[in-house]
Amino acid sequence: MFRSPAVAAASQRTYFIVMEPRRTVYFVSDGTGITAQMLGHSLLTQFEGIRFQQVTLPFIDTAEKALECRDRIDAEASAGNGQPIIFSTLVDGEVRNSLRQANAVFIDFFETFIDPLEAGLGIKSNHTIGRSHSASDTGGYHRRIEAVNFSMAHDDGGSHRELDQADVILVGVSRSGKTPTSLYLALQFGIKAANYPLIPEDFERKRLPEVLHAYRAKLFGLTIAPERLREIRQARRPDSKYADLANCHYEVEQAENLMRREGIRWIDSTARSIEEIAATILREFRIERQVY
Amino acid sequence: MFRSPAVAAASQRTYFIVMEPRRTVYFVSDGTGITAQMLGHSLLTQFEGIRFQQVTLPFIDTAEKALECRDRIDAEASAGNGQPIIFSTLVDGEVRNSLRQANAVFIDFFETFIDPLEAGLGIKSNHTIGRSHSASDTGGYHRRIEAVNFSMAHDDGGSHRELDQADVILVGVSRSGKTPTSLYLALQFGIKAANYPLIPEDFERKRLPEVLHAYRAKLFGLTIAPERLREIRQARRPDSKYADLANCHYEVEQAENLMRREGIRWIDSTARSIEEIAATILREFRIERQVY
Repeated sequence: MFRSPAVAAASQRTYFIVMEPRRTVYFVSDGTGITAQMLGHSLLTQFEGIRFQQVTLPFIDTAEKALECRDRIDAEASAGNGQPIIFSTLVDGEVRNSLRQANAVFIDFFETFIDPLEAGLGIKSNHTIGRSHSASDTGGYHRRIEAVNFSMAHDDGGSHRELDQADVILVGVSRSGKTPTSLYLALQFGIKAANYPLIPEDFERKRLPEVLHAYRAKLFGLTIAPERLREIRQARRPDSKYADLANCHYEVEQAENLMRREGIRWIDSTARSIEEIAATILREFRIERQVY
Repeated sequence: MFRSPAVAAASQRTYFIVMEPRRTVYFVSDGTGITAQMLGHSLLTQFEGIRFQQVTLPFIDTAEKALECRDRIDAEASAGNGQPIIFSTLVDGEVRNSLRQANAVFIDFFETFIDPLEAGLGIKSNHTIGRSHSASDTGGYHRRIEAVNFSMAHDDGGSHRELDQADVILVGVSRSGKTPTSLYLALQFGIKAANYPLIPEDFERKRLPEVLHAYRAKLFGLTIAPERLREIRQARRPDSKYADLANCHYEVEQAENLMRREGIRWIDSTARSIEEIAATILREFRIERQVY
């Protein structure tokens, strides 16, 4: 049997599979668990070299459910993967104290901060569960749904109607990140964000699309590294002119020239998360998020 | 001049305008500020009767920027609206300690929890700033953008292609909350969520749309109170059959009957936030969020 030297060498190697240490992390909440997830995750990003298995336990609003969680967490603690970690936003004292008895590191977001806040504000908290991410703020809810409808209708230049109601209009070449950013601004912040593509016809005319002239103060640009743009476009329309690297270079350069001439602020989306782009836009326009 | 008794009575009333106490709250972060906002907001919902003016100060990553923040917060403290509150996720010790000297209640999310976590995990944290909501997790980033593209393409039954790739397919009558929920699942959790409307033709046939039969295990239903549905539809197409209360009753009843017959799980979106619906769906399908 023929063996290439490489295969022969490989077959003589001994492989060690080094298992990264693993910890199970529980996000426990009387509501959705989203706040616990975000707080917990932001702390866990500070620890490298450990694989975290993440489990969300939402809507834990009775002592019985807390007891079920405790049993589940204690079982994991006995499994030999190290002591689990609990990130809790539980508001109810009884539920919280039940869970605190689990064999786990208990990180308590609620009780830790509610005392200093009560002292600072000079009033007692109401200890109402499930207030975060609930539908009780109906004004905020409507604002948000309206913003989502607006952004969907005004995605990719989809409609010119009611553009005057936009808080922000994102511009940039196709696939520079406008759509996810608009949706994020609408869904998370309640901001009416339209987006409008800059296309080769605009570059030939060397002018902004006509409809945008009246709204220059609302425009914000996204640009992107041509190499990255090529990758994204290549995945969508392989080997098209659209995805061609030279064309991506051309479009990005032209778009940046156009934005420079028109005095439109912009940022580069290449190495930025959607959250970073969205937070930058709010800061630039001095808008605060409208909903929580 | 004629005056109705009611107007005459009203004109004799004395009105007191009671100003709610106001506090200014600062969310300060070396990153986007989103984690600080969520932590702060979830705690502030526990305090009623105070109007909080919320200010986000993102990307505070140098001692100079921290000093600017401190000056701004100290100026607010002198304005007579009570001591401001700072919710900080600052990671860098120097930046954090500079801000801590502001005349404010300082709620320190990072330092409070990093010590017990280091002890629990038995390793030191790396004190790297801006890790939460950064683009450094490129796998997560791509997954998320792909999920958003998928959900946009499969909004409102927009495409039958690649439905087998959906993690979840939401069904329900028009305006029952499918679109914002799908977008939230995609954008926040990295879940590929399609949505497909149930329409009068389906009710007449008393069958699910043909294309959905193969994907029954992925279906999840949203229903809504007919009165609320009427309100939403009325705002979009005033005085249409679509918005008529009797028609809304009919569609909701038929949709629920259909889902019951087909064994599709569903929840009522009427009094639930998008986050609550999304978190319930993940729990029902036993899926964890895919991205942070």
